[in-house]
This record gives sequence, C-alpha cells and structure tokens, in this order.
Amino acid sequence: MILSALEKAEVLVEALPYIKDFYGKRVVIKYGGAAMTECELKMKVMQDIVLMKYVGMHPIVVHGGGPDITGMLGRLSIDTKFVNGLRVTDRDTMEVVEMVLGGKVNKEIVSGLNASGGKAVGISGKDGGLIKARPVDPSGKLGFVGEVETVNPQIIETLIENGYIPVIAPIGIDDEQQSYNINADLVAASIAVGMKADKLVLLTDVPGLLQDKDDSSSLISILKVSQVPGYVAGGIIAGGMIPKVKCCVEAVTGGVSRTHIVDGRVPHSILLEIFTNEGVGTMVVNE
Amino acid sequence: MILSALEKAEVLVEALPYIKDFYGKRVVIKYGGAAMTECELKMKVMQDIVLMKYVGMHPIVVHGGGPDITGMLGRLSIDTKFVNGLRVTDRDTMEVVEMVLGGKVNKEIVSGLNASGGKAVGISGKDGGLIKARPVDPSGKLGFVGEVETVNPQIIETLIENGYIPVIAPIGIDDEQQSYNINADLVAASIAVGMKADKLVLLTDVPGLLQDKDDSSSLISILKVSQVPGYVAGGIIAGGMIPKVKCCVEAVTGGVSRTHIVDGRVPHSILLEIFTNEGVGTMVVNE
Amino acid sequence: MILSALEKAEVLVEALPYIKDFYGKRVVIKYGGAAMTECELKMKVMQDIVLMKYVGMHPIVVHGGGPDITGMLGRLSIDTKFVNGLRVTDRDTMEVVEMVLGGKVNKEIVSGLNASGGKAVGISGKDGGLIKARPVDPSGKLGFVGEVETVNPQIIETLIENGYIPVIAPIGIDDEQQSYNINADLVAASIAVGMKADKLVLLTDVPGLLQDKDDSSSLISILKVSQVPGYVAGGIIAGGMIPKVKCCVEAVTGGVSRTHIVDGRVPHSILLEIFTNEGVGTMVVNE
Amino acid sequence: MILSALEKAEVLVEALPYIKDFYGKRVVIKYGGAAMTECELKMKVMQDIVLMKYVGMHPIVVHGGGPDITGMLGRLSIDTKFVNGLRVTDRDTMEVVEMVLGGKVNKEIVSGLNASGGKAVGISGKDGGLIKARPVDPSGKLGFVGEVETVNPQIIETLIENGYIPVIAPIGIDDEQQSYNINADLVAASIAVGMKADKLVLLTDVPGLLQDKDDSSSLISILKVSQVPGYVAGGIIAGGMIPKVKCCVEAVTGGVSRTHIVDGRVPHSILLEIFTNEGVGTMVVNE
Amino acid sequence: MILSALEKAEVLVEALPYIKDFYGKRVVIKYGGAAMTECELKMKVMQDIVLMKYVGMHPIVVHGGGPDITGMLGRLSIDTKFVNGLRVTDRDTMEVVEMVLGGKVNKEIVSGLNASGGKAVGISGKDGGLIKARPVDPSGKLGFVGEVETVNPQIIETLIENGYIPVIAPIGIDDEQQSYNINADLVAASIAVGMKADKLVLLTDVPGLLQDKDDSSSLISILKVSQVPGYVAGGIIAGGMIPKVKCCVEAVTGGVSRTHIVDGRVPHSILLEIFTNEGVGTMVVNE
Amino acid sequence: MILSALEKAEVLVEALPYIKDFYGKRVVIKYGGAAMTECELKMKVMQDIVLMKYVGMHPIVVHGGGPDITGMLGRLSIDTKFVNGLRVTDRDTMEVVEMVLGGKVNKEIVSGLNASGGKAVGISGKDGGLIKARPVDPSGKLGFVGEVETVNPQIIETLIENGYIPVIAPIGIDDEQQSYNINADLVAASIAVGMKADKLVLLTDVPGLLQDKDDSSSLISILKVSQVPGYVAGGIIAGGMIPKVKCCVEAVTGGVSRTHIVDGRVPHSILLEIFTNEGVGTMVVNE
Repeated sequence: MILSALEKAEVLVEALPYIKDFYGKRVVIKYGGAAMTECELKMKVMQDIVLMKYVGMHPIVVHGGGPDITGMLGRLSIDTKFVNGLRVTDRDTMEVVEMVLGGKVNKEIVSGLNASGGKAVGISGKDGGLIKARPVDPSGKLGFVGEVETVNPQIIETLIENGYIPVIAPIGIDDEQQSYNINADLVAASIAVGMKADKLVLLTDVPGLLQDKDDSSSLISILKVSQVPGYVAGGIIAGGMIPKVKCCVEAVTGGVSRTHIVDGRVPHSILLEIFTNEGVGTMVVNE
Repeated sequence: MILSALEKAEVLVEALPYIKDFYGKRVVIKYGGAAMTECELKMKVMQDIVLMKYVGMHPIVVHGGGPDITGMLGRLSIDTKFVNGLRVTDRDTMEVVEMVLGGKVNKEIVSGLNASGGKAVGISGKDGGLIKARPVDPSGKLGFVGEVETVNPQIIETLIENGYIPVIAPIGIDDEQQSYNINADLVAASIAVGMKADKLVLLTDVPGLLQDKDDSSSLISILKVSQVPGYVAGGIIAGGMIPKVKCCVEAVTGGVSRTHIVDGRVPHSILLEIFTNEGVGTMVVNE
Repeated sequence: MILSALEKAEVLVEALPYIKDFYGKRVVIKYGGAAMTECELKMKVMQDIVLMKYVGMHPIVVHGGGPDITGMLGRLSIDTKFVNGLRVTDRDTMEVVEMVLGGKVNKEIVSGLNASGGKAVGISGKDGGLIKARPVDPSGKLGFVGEVETVNPQIIETLIENGYIPVIAPIGIDDEQQSYNINADLVAASIAVGMKADKLVLLTDVPGLLQDKDDSSSLISILKVSQVPGYVAGGIIAGGMIPKVKCCVEAVTGGVSRTHIVDGRVPHSILLEIFTNEGVGTMVVNE
Repeated sequence: MILSALEKAEVLVEALPYIKDFYGKRVVIKYGGAAMTECELKMKVMQDIVLMKYVGMHPIVVHGGGPDITGMLGRLSIDTKFVNGLRVTDRDTMEVVEMVLGGKVNKEIVSGLNASGGKAVGISGKDGGLIKARPVDPSGKLGFVGEVETVNPQIIETLIENGYIPVIAPIGIDDEQQSYNINADLVAASIAVGMKADKLVLLTDVPGLLQDKDDSSSLISILKVSQVPGYVAGGIIAGGMIPKVKCCVEAVTGGVSRTHIVDGRVPHSILLEIFTNEGVGTMVVNE
Repeated sequence: MILSALEKAEVLVEALPYIKDFYGKRVVIKYGGAAMTECELKMKVMQDIVLMKYVGMHPIVVHGGGPDITGMLGRLSIDTKFVNGLRVTDRDTMEVVEMVLGGKVNKEIVSGLNASGGKAVGISGKDGGLIKARPVDPSGKLGFVGEVETVNPQIIETLIENGYIPVIAPIGIDDEQQSYNINADLVAASIAVGMKADKLVLLTDVPGLLQDKDDSSSLISILKVSQVPGYVAGGIIAGGMIPKVKCCVEAVTGGVSRTHIVDGRVPHSILLEIFTNEGVGTMVVNE
Repeated sequence: MILSALEKAEVLVEALPYIKDFYGKRVVIKYGGAAMTECELKMKVMQDIVLMKYVGMHPIVVHGGGPDITGMLGRLSIDTKFVNGLRVTDRDTMEVVEMVLGGKVNKEIVSGLNASGGKAVGISGKDGGLIKARPVDPSGKLGFVGEVETVNPQIIETLIENGYIPVIAPIGIDDEQQSYNINADLVAASIAVGMKADKLVLLTDVPGLLQDKDDSSSLISILKVSQVPGYVAGGIIAGGMIPKVKCCVEAVTGGVSRTHIVDGRVPHSILLEIFTNEGVGTMVVNE
C-alpha cells in the first residue's frame, strides 16, 4: 500500500501525544531473540531506538547474545556442562562469553544504531564500574554465572546526558576482577531500577503472557503484581515466562513505572508499544 | 483508509532522516491566509508546529491578521483610505491593528499551540525591544505603515532556549514609542536573518510560483536568486508574488539557508515540506 | 527646589540599606487606577519599576484596564448587563476585553517600561500556560468572568532570570480554550503566591485603609490578618476595600511576606513604599 | 535642608540613566588622600562604593597609605633617605610598608565597606600572583621601590564574579619572592588595563587639572591625550600632576574608556562623578 | 641516600590509594610553631600544601604568629600585661597584632605557597565577613582577645572552588568593627566545622599526646573523645595540650571526621600524616 | 631498600613541578608489547595511568593485542596469509580480531585500571563514531587492514570531562559498516592529533632509537623531524622503528607538542618519562 504524503503527515501528528508524554523519559530495552537474529527485524529495532532518541527519550539498550556464544564455543570445541538446567560457566567459557558479547554482539548493535543515525556507545558492566557482580551459586558449582550485586549508573548518566545511546553487554565483575556472565533480563531490570527508568521493555519471542499458551488470542494485556502468585500456582506463568515475569516484578516494585513483555518478532514492536494504543504484549504494573 | 499499526510505525521511521537533519534548526514560519482562517487547516498547522518543537526543531511563528483587522475597522466605522494600493494607517487604524493583532489573533494562535501540546508565548515586536521600525514612506502619506529598521532577537533566543514557541505579531516601534504596522512577510524575513534561521517558510494561498499562473502543474520547484530578475521581467513573478519573492531573496542573501513559498491550503503543508521529499511549493535558493 | 549634587548623592546613599534588603527579591505590582490613566503619574511608575529592576529586584507587573474596555465596548455599541453588581462578560464582551487588555493596555505598559530603560515583555495568562481559569459563577450567569484555578509561573521565571520585566494581562484560559476575564488584583495575588514573592503592592486610588473614611489622617498603617474580621464587622473595611483586603489576606496567608495597599495617586508611591520609611498606605501582615 | 519623600524619589529616578549605562561595568578606584584620612569623607566613599556594587557595577579599590607608613616608620625610628625625591625603600622599610598597607590600611577599608553593607575582600599584589613587580631603578639605589611588570587579574575576576569588592594593597613581588612597594596610582592604572575596566577614578586632594593652579574655577574638564605634551611643556601639567596624568594616559591608551582625576575632598565625589552630569574633576580621554 | 628513578616511581605509586581517598576532601591546617619559624621546615610545609592541592585536596591554612608579634611589640616598646596567663590585648597591641598577622605573616605564607607552585590568597577573618568575634572575657579585662561567634565560609568556598589555597589570619570583627585577636587553633577548628572539613591538622612543637610526657615513645596514637575527661583528670592531658585537645574535640563533635595533633618539627609531617600509614602524632576521633 | 617515611615524602615533593606542568594536559598512550603481557609490568602501567588521572592529567589509552589475536586464530584454525609482510585480514580473521580486541583485551585493561582506583571506560573506534576507516590497500589484497580516514573525538571528550579514562581498541568502520583492523600506533597518533593532545607516548619493547642498534648505551634521546630522512637513509631508523618514527612525526607535525618512544619493559616507564628528568627513550620533536 502506498501512502500519500498527507496520510504520512497524519501519522506523524498522531504520534504527537505519545512523543509529548515520553519526552525526557528513560526507557531500558532488553534486546534479544528473533529481533536480534533476523536481519530485517534487527534493522527495524535500530530505527525504533534511534527515533526514540531523536524525539526526546533516553533509550538504554541491554543485549543478550546466546546463539553467537554457543556458536563460538562449538568452533572452539569447548564442552558445556549443565547443572539444574543452567550452563556451567568455567573460565574458558567465560572468556568466550566476554569476547562474543563485548567484542562482537555489542559492537554490531552499536554499528547498527550509528548507521541508522544514532550516536551509540557500547560498554559492558565492567566499564566505569557499572555492574558489581557475585556468583549466583556461592558453592561455585555454576562457575561464573553471576547476579547483580550493585549498579553504579554514573557512566550511563554521562552518556545519555551527552546525547549517546548506551548499549550494554550483561557482564559484571567482582572485587577480585573476576568476570561474571549475567542474564540480560536481570541486568536490564537492575539498570532500570538503578536509573529510575520510566519503562522497561523486554523483547521476547512470545506474544506476551497468554491465558492459554496455545491460544495467541488469549493475551493478558495487563498483569498486576498481586496476580502473579496465583498465575504461577495456576500454571499460567510457567517455563521461561517465570524469570521474565520475575524481572518485571522486580523492576516495578523497585520504582520503574511500567514494564512490558513485548513480542520482538513483530516488526517495530517497540515503536508500537510506545507510540500507539494498540496492545503489543503484556504490561506488568505494581498493583 | 485505515492504517495498520505497522504502517504507522513505518511512517514514523521514514521521518527519521528528516528529523535528524533538522535537529536543533531554527525555522521561521510566516503564518497567514487560508491556513489561519479555516478551522481544520488551522488545527493541522498547530499540530505541525508543535511536532516540530518536540522532534528538536525551533519553530518561530510570525503571523498576519488581515481579515480580522478589516472586520474590526468596519465594526468601528473607521474608513480606510488607499494610496498606491496601500492602506493608509492613521492613528485610529493603528490602534485597532494593534489590538486585533496583539490581543486577539496572537493569543488565538498561542491557545491553539498550547492546546496541541506546545508551550507557546505570544509577543509583539514591542516586547523586549524586538523590532525597531520606521515609516515605509518618510513623507508620512501612508501613516504608520512601517518597515523593519533593526531586529534584536534576544527575547526570542530566551524563549526558544527555554522550550517555548514564540508567536510574533508584526508590530514595530520607533524611538518615540510610535507603533507601526509592518507586513508580516517582511517581519518573518527580518527575524529569520536576525536569528540566523535555517529555514523560512511563507504560508500562502497559492501553490507556489507557477510558470503559467493558470496551470497549477507548471510549478517552479526551485527558484534561484539569479533567475528572479528575468522572471520578473517576463511577468512570471507578478502581482502579489513580487513581494513574496522579494522577502525570500532578502532572507537567503541574508544568510538563511532555504526559503519556501508553500501552499497553506494543503493540509499539513509545513510537515510535508519538512518531512517528505515531495515538493509542496517553490524553494528559493541563493544561487 | 533645586537640589545640589551633594544632596542628590546623599539621597542615593540613603537608599542603600533598602536596596540591600530587597536585593534579588520578587515584587508583584498590581498596576491600575489613576497611576495608569494620568500621564505624569504613569511615567513615574514606569521609572520606579525600571529602577527596581536595575537595583536588583524582580518587579512583576499585573495590570487592569477598565476605562479602555468600557470605551471600546461603547464604540462598538456592545451593551453591558450587570448581575449583582458584576458586569456579565458574554462572548462579544470577552473578545473586546482581550483585545484591549492584551493588544493595547499591555503593550502600552511594555513600551513605557522600555522607553524608561527597562526590558519588558508583555504576556497574558494564556502565554506559556500561565493562568488556568474557571468561571466565578459555575451557573454561567456571569459569562466569562473567571477566577484563577492554577498558576504555572515557569514563563515568568524564564523572563525574570533573563533580565526581563514581565507585564501580565489578567486573562485566563480553561481546558476548552475558553478565555476568562479575571480581576487583576486576584491575578496579582495568585501570581505573588505562585512565585513565592516577597511583596505584593496593590496600587489604588485611595490612601489606604482609613479608620474614618472621610479623614485621610486616620490611615491604618499596619493591618493584621487577625484584625480583618472585626474591621469588616465594624464597617471600617467596606465597599471596594473588601476585595482589596481579601486579596492581601490571601497573599500573606499564602506565603507572601508583605502586601501593601498603596495610593497610586501619590507620585513615585512604589518607590516611596520600598525605599523610605515613610508610610504610604496600609501594610497587611500575617499576624 | 530637609527633603520630602517625593524629592528623594525624584533623585533616585534621576540616577536611573546612569545606573543603566554603567550596569556590569568595571570601575577601578584609586583611593587615597583626604578621602582616606578624614573620617566623614571616608564613610561617604565606603557608601559610594557599596552603592555602586548594589546597582550592578563592579568597583575595584586600590589604596595607598602614606601617612600611616610614615607614622609607623617614625615609631620604629627607621630613618628615611631620599634619592631624587623618592623615598629609598630598604628591607626594614619594606617590611613596615607591607605590614601597614596589608595588615592595617587594607583591612580598615575592608571593614568599612562591610559595615556599609558590602562584601569586601582585601588582598595585596602577592595574593593569587596578582602583581609581578620589578625595581623601578635596576641599579638598586631606590631599594624596593617597584613598578608593575605584569598583572594577572584572575583573582580579581573570581572575586567580582562572586559578588565581592576587591580591595588591593599596592605591593608586588618578583620571582625571588622579594616584595616591592609600588605607587598606588600606577597599580590602579595597570589593573584597570589588565581588567579591561571601563573607568579609572583617581581620588586626589586637588580639584583636577587647573589651567591656572591658583584659580580653582579654571578647571580643565576634559583633557585629550594629544593635549598632554603641550600642557606639560606649558607648565600646566606640573609637579604631582605629572605622574597622575601619566597614569591616566597609560590607562586610556591601554584600553580603559575613561579616566578621571577627581577631588576626593568633595563628599561623595565618586558618586557625583558617576551619577550626575556635573563635572567633579578632569576626565582624560584617548583623542 | 640517592634514589633510583624506579624507586621514586614506586613511591609515587604507593601514594595512589591515599590520593584517591582524599580526592576533593577539605583539610584545614593550623600552621604555626617551629614549622613556621625554621626556614627549611617552612619550605617543606609549603611544598606539602601545594602538593595536596595538585592531587585534588582542598587545603585551607590558618596561621598564628606569636614570635613576630612579640618582636614588633618590643620594637615599639609596647608593654604587655598578663591576666591569668593570657596576654591582655589593648588597642595599641591589637593594631600591632593585626599588622603583623595580616600584613607580614599572612603574606609571607602566601608568597611561599605561590613560589612552590600554588595559587594562594591571604585573607583575615574580616574579609568577606568570614569571622564574627566577641570578647573572650565580656568584662573587658583581657581587652580584644576574642573568640569565634560565627563563621561565614562563603569567601573560602569561592576561593577553593576557583583553585586557590586560602591562607587565613586569625582575626575576627564584631558589629562595631572592633577587631579581635583569636587563638589560631580555635579559628582553625571553627572553620573546619563551618566548612564541613574532612580533616583538621594542628601543627605543634610536640610529638603528640604522650602517656608519659618525658617519654616520646609513649605516643597515644588514637585518642577517643570519651577518654578525654579521664586523661585530663589523670594529668596526661595537661598544660598546653588542654586547649589543643579541646579544639580537636570541638571539631570532631562538630562534624569533622578526623583531627590530628602533629609534630611540625618533623619534616613533611603533613604529607606523612596524609600519605603514609605511619603515625606522626595523635588522632582524635569522635567515639 | 626500605625507604623511610621522610624519603617517601621527599619523592612526592620532587614530583610537584612535573605535576604542575602537566596539570590538565592530555596524554595519549599507545599500550602494547611486554608492558601488556607481563603481569608485573602490566600492573605498574595501570598504576601509572591512574596516578596521572588523579594528579590532574587526562590519559587516553590506545591498545594493540597481537598475541591474543594470534592465539585465538590458532585455536580456531584460521590460516593467516601474508602479503608483503602484512597479515591479510579476511572476514573470519576480522571477526576474531574484533572479538579479541574489543571483548577481551580492552576489557582486561579497563578492569586493571578500575582495580587500581581509576574509572576506565573501554570503547572501540566504532563507538560514538570515533574512527572512520578505509582500506590501506584499495585493491583489497590485504582485506580489512585499515587506516584512519577521520577521527571524531567527541566521545573521548565526553569521557575525560566526566572523569573517565578512555581505553580504545584500534578498530575503525566505514560507511558500509565494515570493520577494519588498524595499527594501534597509527590510531594513537591520529587520536593525539584529533584531541590536540600535549603528549603521545608509544610503549615499545626497545630502549628507544639507538645510534647502534646493538649498543643500548647509544640511545638518541632527542630526534628532530628534520633528522629523520637522514637517519632512515643511514639505516639508523630501520625495521620496526620506521613506522614508529613515522607515527611520531605525523603526531608532532599535526600539533602534538611532544612524542616519545619509550621502553615498556622498564617498570613505571610512563611515570619516569613524565615525572623525572631522566631519559627513558627517544623524544621526537618538530624541529
């Protein structure tokens, strides 16, 4: 369908109230899944984020990097052990994780944002002392799988105040300079809380939380924190949605106004979430 | 035609390169004609200007007010004399001009911009010593029809730096505190030069400069300053277009990058001019 | 009497303690009455206000405009109805009020201040969303006679921080973009409270509050808020003094340190009030 | 003569154009002579300087201290030798000079200004590296009588930008930490040039430059630099006026707009010079 | 002993953690005793203080000046009376005190700091209204021996924010412009409290507080406020140490983190105190 | 040898003049060679750089990463072809280069600096559009071996103004988002020129330029640009020294005051170079 110039102008004007509402707001975006691996989707995410910056928001990107890490571990013939379903991260694995996340994935996102007209700067949780980490399992059985101990968002503040889009690899460091591999959703939530962000958007490969997981029309648009225990007990929040929802709950109870589980497979899903009234996933609110 | 959410997102993203190009730029808009009198068009202009502000431009509005002035003069039974086609502005007329422009038209535009989500402030050339004027005809035959002697844009700088959209009534003042009625096109051009604006947009009730005035398909999209004398001699620039083009020439030779004569009768014509590649009038360039 | 240079110097030096005390203070001045209509008095008020600005105070002017409005309504043969002694402001009347206040009276004051060496900027309550209004009488019998709902003083802050003297026409606006005509004393008091002003000065055509209204030597120099009910009951505060005193009480209970009812018919009465110990009216204090 | 309140107000208003003209201007005042020794005059000078600060000027005070130095030298029985009419400053003398100027005279002026409502800070040319000096006579015959080699006005800038009135003792220092006693007029002129001051005022005990030194009515109100050689040759500029005029010439040729030789014996002479049209001495201009 | 370049580098690096800890901290130093009278020691103190400034601390110097005052009083044959062991400061004595402290000692320290590469500015408690004083003995028996009534540290803030090292003569002033001679330790403590300093260092001519005053190896490194009464009762804190300790107690109970009584006879004792772990005196802490 | 506290203090004070000279200066350090691979040396470099930051300099680190890249290429069995002695960088190689430099080496340096007390942020030439690159060999025979086309130092400015130490991986990007591997010496020189740095330090594994390459006592301490052609012709500048010297020449002719080829195998060689007079390599000057 070809739009006339006038129709285009009308669309721009329709966005005005949303632009106004979000002016100067901080939005942390966990970027991953299909939106990161499919070229077309990826380009659209880049455009969405740069547009957010130009219309006055402060997007902050936290990325994962699963498939690339697995690929590189395979090429290097590094075996992966699993304990309780979690990949054990030994020293060799950690080295690869860090190279792939910080040296490859992070910089590809930076290039993509810059090519779309933004000014992005890629850092990891080590830079500027951003993320202090500790092992998830103090016994050491999981190796260097970490969790966020504290966030010092000063470097992010410096970057956003100077017009940059921060892109963050989810790596932390402890006092002995040991690196930790941290789940990107958790890093995004911690940074959103630490930055007093207005919004946290988790891009996923599902439509959101479904009442019936096999019926995509059963989307739960709004999920209250108070409903979570019941939904978990009832099996509606299950599997991979459990940690996602947990992240959102942590964020909203930590002061983030709204958090969203959004389907990254929908083109421009971030923009749709922010600039239109049409639901594109599940919003978790602190009620 | 109903657009899908995706189509809307695509349109927003299409605007990104234009948003980027105009970020932080100053655009002086002469607002008048049908775009000011027809309610629907008026609302669209307000939206366009507020959108410009939110995506990082600095719009500055200069308005005329012809019909309202004529109406009020009629209601007050003040006769209008004409000399060489110019309305003689005596003391009584000037009082009405000032009340209508500064008290009615100016504040209506301010309200409209504020209602559309902007923060507008209406001033006249008297405020902050913005426009020092002198009579067009020193003999006094035209009364208080003035021209711009100097522009002191400090108050406009203060307003735009603090997030406001300045709306300016085309009235000047001389050292004896005498007010003058000045053509709004000329005021817009002078302010554009004084502000080192990047763009001057004159909203008119014609499609632009036409090769054949009866053929709207004969639009001259780009007019070089060097072509003007020939076009005037050839009668292509004639009648009311002569002062319009003269304004544009003054502006571009005074340092404004581009000036545009745009058809205000086209909905969202300002937005189209700025955010699309499609020609919506005549651009005058300094070549 | 001709003063010697030395005597002049002595006077300047005498003012020093007052200049020091008021350095950086905000003073809202309700300007109206004889001080606005008599040419000589008017010029002196302009000088007083500009001087205040130069010696480090922040004067903010709110003006009325009664006689000019009445005159213009007469010229336009618009009849005025009265309900309970208040002029009903219908749509036609409101249009005239706005034109006269915003386009004529406001700009005359601006010109006068600028001619006296100041940098004044005239706005109305519509500009920058300064005054949100609502009808005094919700039944609508009084038409568009309004009262202040909220004050957003951001535009005044911007202007005074940048060296300007704000001059404000007492017009408000509601969410439907309807204009309201508001009593200037009330606007001055609301702005004084909203700006956390140190002083509110109401220029009137009486010497202040008199114990005996026929004896100008019976001036009550200091009126405590606690005394007001008794004085009203006793008929000492009566007639036009009731709303004036009410304004002052609102201001001082709202946080303005001192409010003054000053005789605008006395030349330089503002300056006398601020720079000398000699009483020039009635001061209302929150005791 | 007792002035009425109105007369006082008129005087304040009369000062307005002068206040406006000098707003933000830097005025270096060489303070000495009778204005420093007579209590009444001294108090008036203090008031004048504080008033200048409050109405927006930046006064900078440089003081001498002759009689106090002589007195202390006498009390300490330190003999004074003279070479070519200049007091030889040996090490013992220099110590006394510095104590008296920096510890006594300087702080008395500071106290006086503070008591008059100012915020004064007293420094010498040693503080903040303000004045680098060298001996007037390289042969050493005059001891530590110095002249200004360079001025680094950074400390003065810091003080005036933060609301202080700098009070400067005319002492310099060389690279070997040797102190020098420098003529206060010369220091004032050097600082005025170094600060790009608008005005230099030298307070003296004469009415200004007189055509006939015995006829105080023969005051030369304006002295052009081009006239100086002729007046020196003609003996009109003679004796103590030679170095005074030389200072003024250095200042105006160095970029100070105007310099004044003013009679410090006239009460409020500084204020008269700045705030009135009446001549109170000789102005030297660069013509 | 000649150090190799490498050894020097190692020392610099050893200081790094201390530099980091004290970055941006305010340190008030009471300067006096042998460290002020012996040339070699004096030079080292100057270097220490300038180094502190360059590595990011904000040193603030308060000095005494006993011997110079005594010397000058002797040269002027001014007799000194004592009451209860305190020198009575009559008007003549006060004049000398002020000249010597403000004009001689203060400026010598300034010169020394500047010659060592700093930017020092010398002021007294009169400058900028720094110290308001009152007589220690209201009966007047001690004359103008004063104590600190209030400290207004604004001038010190201005100086340190602009890169200067303030050097302060311990003189205060009352509302009648009367100067007072105040004990320098007390001034240092009051300023440390008023500035919310992190550290107060009192340079003395003793090794610190000794358990046995005749055994320099019996140094009490840390003295808790709670121990003071017992130590006074036990005679361990005795004589001149009583006021010293009292100063320290006032400072730490007033909010200064740490105070130190340091042996100024040890070369570079300030630097040692700050940059090494080795004890160089007694630290008083608020426990 | 154990140094006494006093000796340590003396060393700190000795550094004062150097600290003063370099206050606020920008120093670009090319970090590589033994100083990066040997643990002890590495820790000392980190300390040196952090110390520079704390004493007021702005160190900017550019690093190479040769051995790690070779190691990873080996582990991934990626063959390396050489053309004219330069490693051909194909797409696979480039991916590894970027991962190793940006994800591993860069972050290790960041961690080291942070552990030493600094606030470091690691970026590559892609971040913030820092380095725009083009192929060294347009024919493409060398693959993605690049050279600097332009430097946009804005991100570095942002970082150093906010207290960070930038650590830069020598990777550039062209308009098609293609990454290039660039020689770190060249990147350091380009950034030094682009930042108007005061000093460029190249850490190498040689003592500097030797007159006789087998005699380490034949060090050429100062090399003038004008001497370079002769020395190249004479074989004194040969082999790996040719590109090093070329970098230095580019930097000094581009406006960098001084450049140094320093022996990174000497502990604390950077500190020695900056804080002592002892020669630790070859300085290239623009003469």
